[in-house]
Amino acid sequence: MIAEILSTGDEICSGAIIDSNSAHIAEKLMELDIEVTRHSCVGDDLDALAGILREIGGRSDIAVVTGGLGPTRDDLSAEAAAAAAGVRLERDQTATNYIEAFFKKYQRQASESDYKQAMMPCGATPILNARGTAPGFSLTIGKCRCYFMPGIPQEMTAMLSEQIIPDIQANLQAPDEFRRIRTLSVFGLPEARVNDRLSDISAAFSNVKCGMLARFPVIYVKLIATGGEPEKLARSLDEATLWAREKLGAYMFSTEGRSIESEVGVLLRAAGASVAAAESCTGGLVADMLTNVSGSSDYFLLSTVTYANTAKIDLLNVAGEAIERHGAVHEETAKRMAEGVRRLSGATYGVSTSGIAGPTGGSDEKPVGTVCIGIAGPDGASAERFHSPFKERTANKQIFAVLALNVLRKKLKG
Amino acid sequence: MIAEILSTGDEICSGAIIDSNSAHIAEKLMELDIEVTRHSCVGDDLDALAGILREIGGRSDIAVVTGGLGPTRDDLSAEAAAAAAGVRLERDQTATNYIEAFFKKYQRQASESDYKQAMMPCGATPILNARGTAPGFSLTIGKCRCYFMPGIPQEMTAMLSEQIIPDIQANLQAPDEFRRIRTLSVFGLPEARVNDRLSDISAAFSNVKCGMLARFPVIYVKLIATGGEPEKLARSLDEATLWAREKLGAYMFSTEGRSIESEVGVLLRAAGASVAAAESCTGGLVADMLTNVSGSSDYFLLSTVTYANTAKIDLLNVAGEAIERHGAVHEETAKRMAEGVRRLSGATYGVSTSGIAGPTGGSDEKPVGTVCIGIAGPDGASAERFHSPFKERTANKQIFAVLALNVLRKKLKG
Repeated sequence: MIAEILSTGDEICSGAIIDSNSAHIAEKLMELDIEVTRHSCVGDDLDALAGILREIGGRSDIAVVTGGLGPTRDDLSAEAAAAAAGVRLERDQTATNYIEAFFKKYQRQASESDYKQAMMPCGATPILNARGTAPGFSLTIGKCRCYFMPGIPQEMTAMLSEQIIPDIQANLQAPDEFRRIRTLSVFGLPEARVNDRLSDISAAFSNVKCGMLARFPVIYVKLIATGGEPEKLARSLDEATLWAREKLGAYMFSTEGRSIESEVGVLLRAAGASVAAAESCTGGLVADMLTNVSGSSDYFLLSTVTYANTAKIDLLNVAGEAIERHGAVHEETAKRMAEGVRRLSGATYGVSTSGIAGPTGGSDEKPVGTVCIGIAGPDGASAERFHSPFKERTANKQIFAVLALNVLRKKLKG
Repeated sequence: MIAEILSTGDEICSGAIIDSNSAHIAEKLMELDIEVTRHSCVGDDLDALAGILREIGGRSDIAVVTGGLGPTRDDLSAEAAAAAAGVRLERDQTATNYIEAFFKKYQRQASESDYKQAMMPCGATPILNARGTAPGFSLTIGKCRCYFMPGIPQEMTAMLSEQIIPDIQANLQAPDEFRRIRTLSVFGLPEARVNDRLSDISAAFSNVKCGMLARFPVIYVKLIATGGEPEKLARSLDEATLWAREKLGAYMFSTEGRSIESEVGVLLRAAGASVAAAESCTGGLVADMLTNVSGSSDYFLLSTVTYANTAKIDLLNVAGEAIERHGAVHEETAKRMAEGVRRLSGATYGVSTSGIAGPTGGSDEKPVGTVCIGIAGPDGASAERFHSPFKERTANKQIFAVLALNVLRKKLKG
């Protein structure tokens, strides 16, 4: 069973926007154990679109296509699909009704160009889009079942998970075969090392495979169990998770695929605790990550981003002589920053970052990539020094922020 | 003149990493006025790689290929290129010397697998890689000039701009033709509206074309002038920039392609001024953006990320009755936050954000997407309310942060 992914549109082909849809679709197909052999992108050109759909129809079993379903003249996917399948376009009644209902809901009138979105190749099955006006459709071209969706990520991801993935699964999987997935979150090891450590997993568990998603600086490991008995799959995943925990040790921070900021949020909530951050080199990224979690206002009180030493001294009450004696990047300074922001905010925990993100500012003693993370809590304060191998500013800010959240996580785990 | 982009590697094909290289390469080819007709990605499979290289060799003039040049057994691009071109692999002396020099520099010994990276198809021209061990190469396959590079973005972008783009330009452009590019930065209009407003540019300036890069929420417009006289091109770009400024008005914030945070940094530096931020809904993103600019510690003093109302009251000295009367999301509160952080930090300017990023927390009166931006400076404080059409948290955080920086920018411009 092999699949291809096709994204369409001049804006992707010209580099005007970065295609993140294809990686998402590949990830979801990987969870079904379907091998993705090729991704392609072509622009808004009828011949190019019909041509590549014919190619795909000749060589693949499944194709997931995004883009080109909107109301404008550039939106050519339905026409190209019809040409590739050798059928004509016709107005689909289900899709028409849906478009009318969508506009009625917003008290607007559908125009002729909106109705164009109901034109589908003969024999296509409409795929409704609860979040936008453009319906998708599925159609067999050559030997390939092709699924067409709009390119807007929110619409695409919902249609994929709610309709297309279940359809693929129903058509392709033996009715008595089940599949369970668990995602492990890992930080602090390069992808190749994670791979090495888990390379024997299928030898240890014959019904479990694993796949890897690198979302810098965190790596998500998907354990996928397949077989005939759902209860047995759950047991296999439990055992494989324990096995993976032994191999990955403290590098694994969640067995539910959480991000580090979500995991910290769950732990803070469970402990009835709150947090404040004193950030220097991370420049607000710790706060940004924490507040990306919905509901974080329940436990996140404050972050102070202090770049200037005077701000550290005045606001956080870090003794000037400490900075003078040790420098701003030092365990002692980080510890005092954490204490200072904890006191200032009244939070249960204070966490701090002080380091050199680069590309400039490093020295022999404190090279670019050096960071001190401080933590203060009810039982006192401490700080630790870390070294990132990266020389690039945004990469180091990301690593430093995750390091800080990971220190807090370990503290919360006791 | 048509081009294709091929990225290789299981990690991209499986969705484990998102391919941002292809958009970057497409952008650079667009600047040369070369049409990119297709992007593709295949995994680390010799037959698949050789097959797609043969396809490309039959239909395109130029191909830029990334990935598969490293020392491991999965790195198959050179072997596939040789197979597609019908030549054998041989060790290239220039590449061998280069690899030896690279390892010598780091006082390490090159291993046999490192030397594998010097194996190139007969007739290939090596492309040296100053930032890594894997050299690239160029090779003609079929009718197509193919450029092979490693997939590591820092190595790839440097090799592309320093060696490959000049080579393409030298081979493909008439020796008496010149090209000049200017990038305009735009915020506050959707891409389609920017396109509409600039659609007549080639009618107004016959030697100027324009291309668009959407990097949410900012849009970068590239003006590309081509012709025989370099001085005339510079003049055309000046005139086209003035023309675009009339069409885009205050939506255009830089004629040098700066990000909003860089533009604000340049203006602050020129004014000898400093800034502090009081962030609520942006959760540290304003500070994160400002501190992504190298040297920002010269003018960025402090950001306080206050999620809890008590933090606003205590730290920023925002009167509790103001929050009680108007709510946290209100011009009055935003104004007092900006004043508070200005006072606290001693900065020339204080800027603040208070809004509802969503997805929850909205009301009829203050729907998700509402934000109040406050600004305080030597001549007093004020605040303004904006509405984003988005319902999604991270999108709104990005828009709100850019809105805040844009309010500061306008203040600095007077």
